[in-house]
Amino acid sequence: MVRLETAVLAKNDALAERNRAWLAGRQILALNLVSSPGSGKTSLLERTIRDLGADRQIAVIEGDQQTTFDAERIRATGAPTVQVNTGAGCHLEADMVWEAFKVLRPESGALVLIENVGNLVCPALFDLGEAAKVAVLSVTEGEDKPAKYPHMFQASSLILLNKIDLLPHLSFDLDRCVGYARDVNPDAEVLPISVTTGDGLDRWYEWIGRQMEELADRAFA
Amino acid sequence: MVRLETAVLAKNDALAERNRAWLAGRQILALNLVSSPGSGKTSLLERTIRDLGADRQIAVIEGDQQTTFDAERIRATGAPTVQVNTGAGCHLEADMVWEAFKVLRPESGALVLIENVGNLVCPALFDLGEAAKVAVLSVTEGEDKPAKYPHMFQASSLILLNKIDLLPHLSFDLDRCVGYARDVNPDAEVLPISVTTGDGLDRWYEWIGRQMEELADRAFA
Repeated sequence: MVRLETAVLAKNDALAERNRAWLAGRQILALNLVSSPGSGKTSLLERTIRDLGADRQIAVIEGDQQTTFDAERIRATGAPTVQVNTGAGCHLEADMVWEAFKVLRPESGALVLIENVGNLVCPALFDLGEAAKVAVLSVTEGEDKPAKYPHMFQASSLILLNKIDLLPHLSFDLDRCVGYARDVNPDAEVLPISVTTGDGLDRWYEWIGRQMEELADRAFA
Repeated sequence: MVRLETAVLAKNDALAERNRAWLAGRQILALNLVSSPGSGKTSLLERTIRDLGADRQIAVIEGDQQTTFDAERIRATGAPTVQVNTGAGCHLEADMVWEAFKVLRPESGALVLIENVGNLVCPALFDLGEAAKVAVLSVTEGEDKPAKYPHMFQASSLILLNKIDLLPHLSFDLDRCVGYARDVNPDAEVLPISVTTGDGLDRWYEWIGRQMEELADRAFA
């Protein structure tokens, strides 16, 4: 079992490197959004497309076990979107993303947002060729999640703490959560946000801007 | 890959049947609680132990990728508890539960509550020998989750919609959520609850009582 898993991961890693090279060649920034179900990823994408979509093309790959609900929501914003249904599968893989690129045909300089299947475990293992993983954690889930699901938070460059508008109605210790996140991943940035009120989203957009600049620096690196 | 997965599942199913037989022999009701991370499973267990623990022994198996936070919370209630850490793994398996039984040594007639790893995908595939799976869905996760993760909700006999005390602060359509749940699983019972306020918990306790009675009926069936 372990050997087969290693083989599956090695094959995926090779395909992810192909994705990464293609993205670098086209100067496209791809971000892999990971979280529990219901953390607010789709709402974050809708809002991000509305706020940044005038400056650059934003294309979206939606991963879900079943339904096309999320792709329909994103399509309503006008952004090109592909839904990938994983059936019994619990995560997106690099070859699914490659097939989605062929349908999406994102233009050079675009931002591609990949919404992974809602799952704090398995997507951590599968590189999709993205520039960075972004973990979204809703404050309704409790502050201990970075410690309980360390692999995902270790694999993420940015951690967005969403739904902070609900903090007055919860017993959630923001500082403790940030502490747990720093324990498992001292290098990650942690940004509290509310997609509902817009709080903190300017810092999310600045972070995306910095990733775009770094991508340009790495074009032939 | 598919063949190996089938072999893994077949092996697990056989071990699950052994667990089920052992539980039937001892007249122990085992429930497998499944959900996204942060749906409130541990809080539900704490409250259930407080409310029902005087009538019968309640023992708990806690599954998490990492940490012993949940076992420590349950231990504080006085209930016997074992924590199983799955490491990179995304679900409990029947053999882990068997090993946990040996440590827990639950008495005849006990209620064993198994809190699975927070994951709406993978635990659906792995029978632990439980009498029933109970899915816990927090209303903060959005009403579409039964449709987007149909395998888990199909596999569950009871669906608890938790955190209904937060409904005034959310745009969550309870009827629509119940509709999605019934679409994927017409046989499941759906109970709205709030562990924080106690709303609806009496119906959860009645449901447990009925499962206990059915277990007695099945002792030699």
